[in-house]
Amino acid sequence: MRILVLGGDGYLGWPTALYLSRRGHDVGVVDNFARRGYDLEMGVDSLVPISNLQQRVRRWEAVSGLKVSIHIGDMTDAVFVTRVLREFEPDAVVHFAEQRSAPYSMIDRGHAVYTQKNNVLGTLNLLYAIAEQDPSIHLVKLGTMGEYGTPDIDIEEGFIEITHKGRTDVLPYPKQPGSFYHLSKVHDSHNIMFACKIWGLRATDLNQGIVYGQETEETSLHPELATRYDYDAVFGTVLNRFCVQAVTGHALTVYGSGGQTRGMLDIRDTLACVELAIVNPATKGEYRVFNQFTESFSVNDLAMMVADALPGKVEIAHLEDPRVEQEEHYYRAAHTKLLDLGLVPHMLSEKTIRSLITTAERHADRVDPDAIRPTVSWRRTASTLPSAGNGDETAILDVAESGNAEALGFGGAAAASAD
Amino acid sequence: MRILVLGGDGYLGWPTALYLSRRGHDVGVVDNFARRGYDLEMGVDSLVPISNLQQRVRRWEAVSGLKVSIHIGDMTDAVFVTRVLREFEPDAVVHFAEQRSAPYSMIDRGHAVYTQKNNVLGTLNLLYAIAEQDPSIHLVKLGTMGEYGTPDIDIEEGFIEITHKGRTDVLPYPKQPGSFYHLSKVHDSHNIMFACKIWGLRATDLNQGIVYGQETEETSLHPELATRYDYDAVFGTVLNRFCVQAVTGHALTVYGSGGQTRGMLDIRDTLACVELAIVNPATKGEYRVFNQFTESFSVNDLAMMVADALPGKVEIAHLEDPRVEQEEHYYRAAHTKLLDLGLVPHMLSEKTIRSLITTAERHADRVDPDAIRPTVSWRRTASTLPSAGNGDETAILDVAESGNAEALGFGGAAAASAD
Repeated sequence: MRILVLGGDGYLGWPTALYLSRRGHDVGVVDNFARRGYDLEMGVDSLVPISNLQQRVRRWEAVSGLKVSIHIGDMTDAVFVTRVLREFEPDAVVHFAEQRSAPYSMIDRGHAVYTQKNNVLGTLNLLYAIAEQDPSIHLVKLGTMGEYGTPDIDIEEGFIEITHKGRTDVLPYPKQPGSFYHLSKVHDSHNIMFACKIWGLRATDLNQGIVYGQETEETSLHPELATRYDYDAVFGTVLNRFCVQAVTGHALTVYGSGGQTRGMLDIRDTLACVELAIVNPATKGEYRVFNQFTESFSVNDLAMMVADALPGKVEIAHLEDPRVEQEEHYYRAAHTKLLDLGLVPHMLSEKTIRSLITTAERHADRVDPDAIRPTVSWRRTASTLPSAGNGDETAILDVAESGNAEALGFGGAAAASAD
Repeated sequence: MRILVLGGDGYLGWPTALYLSRRGHDVGVVDNFARRGYDLEMGVDSLVPISNLQQRVRRWEAVSGLKVSIHIGDMTDAVFVTRVLREFEPDAVVHFAEQRSAPYSMIDRGHAVYTQKNNVLGTLNLLYAIAEQDPSIHLVKLGTMGEYGTPDIDIEEGFIEITHKGRTDVLPYPKQPGSFYHLSKVHDSHNIMFACKIWGLRATDLNQGIVYGQETEETSLHPELATRYDYDAVFGTVLNRFCVQAVTGHALTVYGSGGQTRGMLDIRDTLACVELAIVNPATKGEYRVFNQFTESFSVNDLAMMVADALPGKVEIAHLEDPRVEQEEHYYRAAHTKLLDLGLVPHMLSEKTIRSLITTAERHADRVDPDAIRPTVSWRRTASTLPSAGNGDETAILDVAESGNAEALGFGGAAAASAD
């Protein structure tokens, strides 16, 4: 199949592009390099060095003999979106091309507006382009489990049957997202569902859990094929970051009590899920939701697993939670649809954690401890980034108000962050 | 109280500003004249002539002795939004400043993107400005009953208790909005709920039904105080438009079977509801939803009522529905919260309809029959407006595809439109 991977230069987009290429699909990558720009803005970098997109693609061809085409442009540019669909003529579009960090969206007004504008309007452009060019193109959209929040009932896959005052209907599952980023995904979901209804589009919304891992079969073939390993407080996901903290001798920083529980999955399962969705497409007019995760863990569970992998070497510290979220809550979410399609999950094992630790050790000299310090507070309307040089003062002042000034003096990892 | 009315030059914003002024509040009006710009774009005009904002405000002072301040600017301009809040120091902000027509949002990609950008990002700017300036400012936001769509169970006011697999929670009511405009209001609702949670803002989301009527106690005091009367296919609401069709000898055009049922209310009740929300504010951190309508009618009900008011003079025609919506459906929506606060509704009476008809007769020479013709189709990604001069061709071509080419040859009113 002909598959366009939007955001194909990113943490998941790049390995997805390689995986699909190796599985015999004709792959094009679309990117505007926004993700690399966020690094520049924050003065941080991927722990594992990454090549530029052109180098990556050349290396992939050298290693595999397979071609991947590059299409550079911005999803908020409707002329570009229309042109790339017309020129590539995809059967499926995998849409990773969104700002995907909760803390980034919560930095201040500008970042909140940027996130919703970039994500929601970019996706709107895409929906129109698909409807106009070829409504049979299957949209595989990356959403997030964070769209649901933490309701006190079981989470279902996108829809729920509700019986109320003697009548019954199946309705979209109520959403309680926890950041302006997560909200942007909820807005997308509503827009996509509507586009399927009025134009007969076909879409799969992958409500993905928090991804861990950095190596896939394809990226391991050559260092120039590596994908990102983010450990900073804004873009790093929780398990990747705990491993960096453990390796560099910092306490694993758990926000609040650490009871926050989230669905998670191995990076290799992300790739498999995306392909399963593509080869088993939604039908005309169908908007379907798959909860894309394999296991649920609390932040404490993850901290303990990392500590167990390096016995006697790891401390765990509890910080004031900079997010507004429930620290202890019920969490039970359905995730059978991808299993029904044949997903064979990689469960989180000590081996996976050891692999992350080994990667972190190899690049330990690249770690900037300042970058791990969480400075973005949900309770403030404007946070200062560590790179601004005066983050400490702001952060401590604010925490002081809630009576825990000391807690933020050292590196902390955003619990369950940046999904 | 000090009250800012955002969008205070519009159909409902202007009479709301006068009503609040007369009730002793200190009122400021914010507007960017976008609504008047849509008229220019479409080559239509309010049936009742309206003065410019400066004339209106001067006339109001001459008539009542009361001052209303004017603040001209755009809600997507964060600097402006911050400045106007800082200078005016409101106790409450009533937010009408959004693009409010479903058909307008469905014209094409540009109008869909404009609507979501203008509405969602403007409201985001407002939330940040309130949080930064004074989180105790009460936000009274105009939403729409159209956020709910037409579920097969009773609609509640914003939230619903769900029992599922033996557990129970109260969750946001699932939303199934029917246009990119309605979607923008759903996006707003999610963003506002979150801002109340993280910053302790106080907000009332008025999920308003379709408003009818054009005269209020205040606007009747002088012709220069009149508010808009929209009868065109894009911005006219259904009852106002039926009255214009009846007066000008056109058949009342019902879309599809006419069983589409919606909550409705008298323009005077809009004003009363807004003030009830203001004087009974939400508490700190509270996001509450009031369903702001008084009665439910089907489009057929309304057509019959207009026909009954002019016996023997009115024909009713059924057109292919240009929207994607259920033409027959269950509809039962709660609306007790505003009644509990003391709302005494104006029920729809023959007297109200006669008043609309009298107004339409007085200005019948201003009616442009072309403007009533519905040209915006939900099934197309790009519709041509009548003002573009070639709307006929596009419209007929499209309807022909579904086997009803003739039906669109004459003036049609968007059923239950433009709420």
